[in-house]
Amino acid sequence: MISAFNDPAYRDGVIDLMGLLAYGEISASERLNADAAMAPDLPTKAEIMQMAAAEFGHFLTLRDRLYELGADPWQIMAEFEPTFERFHRMTQPSDWLEGLLKAFVGDGMASDFYREIAAYLDEDNRDIVVDTLSGTGNSQFVIDRVRAAIAEDPPISGRLALWSRRLMGEALSQAQTLAAEREGLTAVVVGSVDRPSRDVPSMDFGALARMFARITDAHAERMRQLGLDA
Amino acid sequence: MISAFNDPAYRDGVIDLMGLLAYGEISASERLNADAAMAPDLPTKAEIMQMAAAEFGHFLTLRDRLYELGADPWQIMAEFEPTFERFHRMTQPSDWLEGLLKAFVGDGMASDFYREIAAYLDEDNRDIVVDTLSGTGNSQFVIDRVRAAIAEDPPISGRLALWSRRLMGEALSQAQTLAAEREGLTAVVVGSVDRPSRDVPSMDFGALARMFARITDAHAERMRQLGLDA
Repeated sequence: MISAFNDPAYRDGVIDLMGLLAYGEISASERLNADAAMAPDLPTKAEIMQMAAAEFGHFLTLRDRLYELGADPWQIMAEFEPTFERFHRMTQPSDWLEGLLKAFVGDGMASDFYREIAAYLDEDNRDIVVDTLSGTGNSQFVIDRVRAAIAEDPPISGRLALWSRRLMGEALSQAQTLAAEREGLTAVVVGSVDRPSRDVPSMDFGALARMFARITDAHAERMRQLGLDA
Repeated sequence: MISAFNDPAYRDGVIDLMGLLAYGEISASERLNADAAMAPDLPTKAEIMQMAAAEFGHFLTLRDRLYELGADPWQIMAEFEPTFERFHRMTQPSDWLEGLLKAFVGDGMASDFYREIAAYLDEDNRDIVVDTLSGTGNSQFVIDRVRAAIAEDPPISGRLALWSRRLMGEALSQAQTLAAEREGLTAVVVGSVDRPSRDVPSMDFGALARMFARITDAHAERMRQLGLDA
């Protein structure tokens, strides 16, 4: 069906990747919907639910892709459930603003990650990832709300900066554990199996570390734009 | 902007109607997302979240319509918040199956209601209502899950039948209170102000009661299809 899929290692890595992204999107959507219940007013609630709905739409795209690849989406996704649930358990927002910032940080990291790996994917799968990368479209809303909250109560910026560092630290920790556990996935992500014609995948922890460093830098830059010390 | 809107009573009634529908959709979406957390597995959770996302999409359409009509969506919606929150408080599902059935019953009643009132609306607003009426598209999923639950544990049908009667009773009770409180809305709904050229709205409780009776009959028929005594 998809001609670039003759290399089974590449195919398995891509299926892993789509499962990882799919679970990430549905769990992010679920958490944001829960955060929406803490919103101080109806317009804010609607904005948060709209971000959640956008993430759910990404999930649907990725789930359908897994079906197209001949995989069982639920089985693949279940393998990533512990990683994401651990991350979410370690990073429970105490209010809607922390929830909003978590979604913004997660969305930013996901977009960076998608952009990093898109280059190593075949065209069909790259298109899916790039579509998913289009974001929730509500970043400006988050920036406005966080800035307004800081303007109203300046000391809040210290708490939010700490929160964003904790989010980044937990995300990196989970990502590193996952990368070590799943070599096939890591090989696809860092491009050591970028095309079906390549050799047997070989782990490249240096490439992975450099990717994490670029994502961390981009995160720090986004936090500065919000007025937070990263 | 919208030529059929020269009659202020009609315009106000339509704005009320759109506000009612918009709050109904966003609150239904919110409750379904909360129910999704009780789902027994990931595929079921995803189905429930998909219904919630469809309802959220309806909300967005209605909210945008309110902006187009020159109304403040949040202000209009807030007027219907007590009605819906009272309904939801009186009908808290005890598990995901009750939540699913509630969404199915609510969606069925909403579709019937939309169909009833669409005939009395001008073309522009009718189109909006008919689009919203298109449903969450997951009715078959609900039917399958409810039937499977009954097949697995036949006594459950008694509890679910009772639950569906309670939902219908609470919905009718809230609708009757609302109709009595908001004459302009009721006039639009029963078609006593169906065109801007008509006379001053006059309440028609007989027409309203007949509409509620038709909606109740349609509900009973849907419950029979599910294998539940209405």
